Amino acid sequence: MRYELYYWPGIQGRGEFVRLALEAAGADYVDVARLSGQGKSVTAMLRLMNDDVLPQPPFAPPFLKAGKLVIAQTANILQYLGPHLGLVPASAAGRSWAHQLQLTVTDFLFEVHDTHHPISVELYYSEQKTEAKRRTKYFLETRVPKYLGYFERVAAANRGRMVGRSLSYVDLSMFQILAGLRYAFPKTIAKLERDWPTLVALHHKVAAQPNVAAYLASKRRIAFNEDGIFRHYPELEQR
Amino acid sequence: MRYELYYWPGIQGRGEFVRLALEAAGADYVDVARLSGQGKSVTAMLRLMNDDVLPQPPFAPPFLKAGKLVIAQTANILQYLGPHLGLVPASAAGRSWAHQLQLTVTDFLFEVHDTHHPISVELYYSEQKTEAKRRTKYFLETRVPKYLGYFERVAAANRGRMVGRSLSYVDLSMFQILAGLRYAFPKTIAKLERDWPTLVALHHKVAAQPNVAAYLASKRRIAFNEDGIFRHYPELEQR
Repeated sequence: MRYELYYWPGIQGRGEFVRLALEAAGADYVDVARLSGQGKSVTAMLRLMNDDVLPQPPFAPPFLKAGKLVIAQTANILQYLGPHLGLVPASAAGRSWAHQLQLTVTDFLFEVHDTHHPISVELYYSEQKTEAKRRTKYFLETRVPKYLGYFERVAAANRGRMVGRSLSYVDLSMFQILAGLRYAFPKTIAKLERDWPTLVALHHKVAAQPNVAAYLASKRRIAFNEDGIFRHYPELEQR
Repeated sequence: MRYELYYWPGIQGRGEFVRLALEAAGADYVDVARLSGQGKSVTAMLRLMNDDVLPQPPFAPPFLKAGKLVIAQTANILQYLGPHLGLVPASAAGRSWAHQLQLTVTDFLFEVHDTHHPISVELYYSEQKTEAKRRTKYFLETRVPKYLGYFERVAAANRGRMVGRSLSYVDLSMFQILAGLRYAFPKTIAKLERDWPTLVALHHKVAAQPNVAAYLASKRRIAFNEDGIFRHYPELEQR
């Protein structure tokens, strides 16, 4: 099966969690909006979100076409792909636990995004910088330690993996979260990550997986930038 | 099976989406933290979130005990309960679509919460009132029409229900969202809801379902208040 991924072409964003799963498993997929004739491809993506076209329209990208099925919401896409790509334990309880963790990843990403957009996505960052500084302060002091401390405990209690005994999509998401945090808040995370030895080791292990390593070295991996979820605005981590 | 729901005893919050499902289906359940000896019950709830007790600890309430299974994350709990309570279509595609919609409900609730807490959950509302006013302005102008307009389109395209042909947990969530919005922003929603005739009709239909009606009239239904997700601070909807 050739999967079709629909997501914004210029950013990692939420789509990256799906890209990492497809790449790690060596799946056959097309990143539709990144095909040549980019403007046209983005238009095609947005057209699919209109209920005149699809009876069950996605609310927002990313979404995945798998045959006739169209699935939106990152965690839901991963829940669907997991068993097909061998990136989740086979048992119902194992899959449910993986999905539960992924939903906590979703919550965390929402909070990451709102560090630079605490007032509205309709405004530029520069129009909400004062509020962004204030939100980021609390985010780094209380929320990052709470979430990452939780993920660290989970991985430490499970021999260094988030779920099961082999690579899962939750491991891939942890890799991406640590990469993103390091990019956005380098000074702060360099200190904080000493408390997450299991997650740091997991990050290395994921990056060294042959398919992931090849992906990260390829042009398909978009660089972090200031249009995505993880943004590096140095003023936000200054005290 | 007697389900055990673990959630904060004094608010509707995210737990209410689970309570509504259990009540609508007439399920046998205990709302653990609301048993007599409340302080003790809350302590028992928090103890379960410690990985010394559970190998797969929840990140936050609500969570549900179903036999030996402990499931956290509201949308994940509803995904589990749906088939057991007959509150979701039987097909895999129908269940996935219901869950996808519920994850969009989750996103929306995050945005509702942050209207009164745009900076940090560590601060009181009074300490972030200025930012709350600014965020609420954009929330009511752009986000509410976007989300509710989407849900309206979905229900209108499906004969007045969110999924399938009979009551689902997504219908119950829509009931709760409209109730909450009306409580929090009465003046604004009175105008906006004219654009959502299908959702308003669905709200009435859900409220009239005998089990739901009995629940809403009972003491088990906690009143909306200023500790929950939907809070009525009149100054936030003033222009």
